[in-house]
Amino acid sequence: MILKTNILIGQSGGPTAAINASLAGIISSALKATEIGTIYGARNGIQGVLEEQLIDLSKLFFTEDLIDRLQKTPSMYLGSCRFKLPVQMLQNETYDRIFQVFEKYHIKYFFYIGGNDSMDTVSKLSNYARSRNFSTRIIGVPKTIDNDLMEIDHTPGFGSAAKYIAASLLEMAHDTYIYDLPCVLIAEIMGRNAGWLTAASALARTAYSTAPHLIYLPEKPFSTSSFIRDVKSQLSKRKQVVIAVSEGLRDTHGEYLYAQASRIDQFGHIMLSGTGKYLEGLIVDTIGCKVRSVELNVLQRCSAHIASLTDIEESHALGREAFQAALLGQTGIMATLTRTSDNPYAVEYGTVSVDQVANFEKKIPPHWILPSGNDISQELIDYMRPLTMGESFPSYDKGIPEYLFLPESFPS
Amino acid sequence: MILKTNILIGQSGGPTAAINASLAGIISSALKATEIGTIYGARNGIQGVLEEQLIDLSKLFFTEDLIDRLQKTPSMYLGSCRFKLPVQMLQNETYDRIFQVFEKYHIKYFFYIGGNDSMDTVSKLSNYARSRNFSTRIIGVPKTIDNDLMEIDHTPGFGSAAKYIAASLLEMAHDTYIYDLPCVLIAEIMGRNAGWLTAASALARTAYSTAPHLIYLPEKPFSTSSFIRDVKSQLSKRKQVVIAVSEGLRDTHGEYLYAQASRIDQFGHIMLSGTGKYLEGLIVDTIGCKVRSVELNVLQRCSAHIASLTDIEESHALGREAFQAALLGQTGIMATLTRTSDNPYAVEYGTVSVDQVANFEKKIPPHWILPSGNDISQELIDYMRPLTMGESFPSYDKGIPEYLFLPESFPS
Repeated sequence: MILKTNILIGQSGGPTAAINASLAGIISSALKATEIGTIYGARNGIQGVLEEQLIDLSKLFFTEDLIDRLQKTPSMYLGSCRFKLPVQMLQNETYDRIFQVFEKYHIKYFFYIGGNDSMDTVSKLSNYARSRNFSTRIIGVPKTIDNDLMEIDHTPGFGSAAKYIAASLLEMAHDTYIYDLPCVLIAEIMGRNAGWLTAASALARTAYSTAPHLIYLPEKPFSTSSFIRDVKSQLSKRKQVVIAVSEGLRDTHGEYLYAQASRIDQFGHIMLSGTGKYLEGLIVDTIGCKVRSVELNVLQRCSAHIASLTDIEESHALGREAFQAALLGQTGIMATLTRTSDNPYAVEYGTVSVDQVANFEKKIPPHWILPSGNDISQELIDYMRPLTMGESFPSYDKGIPEYLFLPESFPS
Repeated sequence: MILKTNILIGQSGGPTAAINASLAGIISSALKATEIGTIYGARNGIQGVLEEQLIDLSKLFFTEDLIDRLQKTPSMYLGSCRFKLPVQMLQNETYDRIFQVFEKYHIKYFFYIGGNDSMDTVSKLSNYARSRNFSTRIIGVPKTIDNDLMEIDHTPGFGSAAKYIAASLLEMAHDTYIYDLPCVLIAEIMGRNAGWLTAASALARTAYSTAPHLIYLPEKPFSTSSFIRDVKSQLSKRKQVVIAVSEGLRDTHGEYLYAQASRIDQFGHIMLSGTGKYLEGLIVDTIGCKVRSVELNVLQRCSAHIASLTDIEESHALGREAFQAALLGQTGIMATLTRTSDNPYAVEYGTVSVDQVANFEKKIPPHWILPSGNDISQELIDYMRPLTMGESFPSYDKGIPEYLFLPESFPS
């Protein structure tokens, strides 16, 4: 009897507009590989492996059209989890259980698409497999809107989020410029420790609009007095000032700004109201002009209707690269990409040991932030721009985007 | 000497994704009309007329491509104002000044694109012209995302905002469904007194997703205890619950839900920002599950990158209709549209006396709200759906939408 060679794929962490493109890349490659039997998906990441919640994806994706629709669907098609594996040796039954499921379903290749927490899972599982001489290959596929993974030029999902942020910032600038009155708009952008997404707001600048006029990143301690000085200086030059701030701004004592914006609700509980709201109040109190703060919130990570084509294509290619690396016998690695040319923009795919990625965080290097601490360098803009190029539009049905769902994964 | 026949156009009120399509409709018609000399635009609405801030649009729009780009640009190309004309007879110098400017620039036709406040301006100016036997025709062109104008089936700008809201709600539902944990997402939507935009969230429902599961409109007094009961009931049926709420919800005493968070802006309007946050706190305190509130904010009125083609085409046609009515000698009227068929959807253009529109507000009729007060009827969904159909995509340059700006109207 010939043992079947099956694969299993899981998705983990927070949503992006491109994570399903990597899933599509793996499925598409596996469907073409004659040595592969069944393509399984795990519901809710490693949690679904532990609970044996596996889906036969080979049966779901029988046309190119379905794979294309998957590729353009935001958030995790397979569902997600925030499950962190215990330290090995302390609780081996969790690992034993996972590999029992692998064995039961003849899983030779396990792919995990996620950020640095998910790469920790890849690292632990591959180390465990090595220590027990299990042949299952454990492969990581990167994703995160935060662009904070090491050993990769940029992360899948970042380009689409950056495109959404830049387009929205430009539209909000058009919205702000219409009245002949002094006013300030503050856009609060995701990224608690790394400012890449907030920096992407600079891509909104055009020949006619210099918004955002001020950019504050979590990499620099935030000074209230410098901020007020900056805003006053901008208001002396133009009537409407647009400001991009990271949700994770911290003061010079390392305290989050949003933690200082708390208020007491009617039940006496403290509610955090956000960095943007805090700064809105600060400007109203010290300058007194009209201010509006807008939190881009989850839409910046799930707005697949304005995804970057470059991002979607690269995310797909990273899935394909991971699959090919697995077939070559690699394990404990993450598919990665390296920029080989700036102009024209070009990348090259490869792999890297997952231990160089797991649990690390990449921040914006200091030389890409202007000494004033309120703007970024042209080099950083040039680094980001190509990642947002091209449009990956979904098809539309009844006026809204036509996405794909995992049967029964949605509440009915 | 033959007197030149010139036209003047102004825009007023809050931004929409379609207001420039009406401007494009007037410009495009006027360029083809041999009897028209110069097409002027007033910066910042009637304020620009008073200050003689007129722009020669004939010189700016010399190609079809430029008019098309104008049509796809969000917010007011000419700028806006919130200037309310004084009651006539009390301050005639304001009126005299406006008609002096009209005379100086040989303005025979004045078009004002705006909502019910702007129609008040059209009404006052046309009455003044009649009382003085001035021949200037004063014509209103409707716009507002709020869909609250009388004497029109629906308002230009509403369809695009509705499309943005529905697409975003669907994407946020995908974002919410991924974790295998109970959680609630609250989307706070614009519309202080009328719930049309909040109702549009229902257009996000698909064959696989019934989100939003609860919808609360300002037309119904809001009961905290009913709300908590509704949410608990939903959480007993599904793990993830998505709720759409209007920013303008009021309790049974008529008080805005989060009155503590409101403040008065410089125009004397109450600024609401806290309804979603208030309800988020309420659920945390009484139910204790994970909750996130998202305020769609200004993006719902300025996201031209996902505008409704139906909306853009109708807005253009209303500009054309207004121009034709002016040439026929009408004054004190607003261009309007009537729905002549539901299936297939069809409309007919015409005009209506502006006095039937100015200062009135159209709310959702009670029979389109379910008796439970937490959802809308299928009839309302069927009424809204056609308005969101088709996509009007802008072109892209360097990864972001390519919009048009009025030279010098933007801070440099």
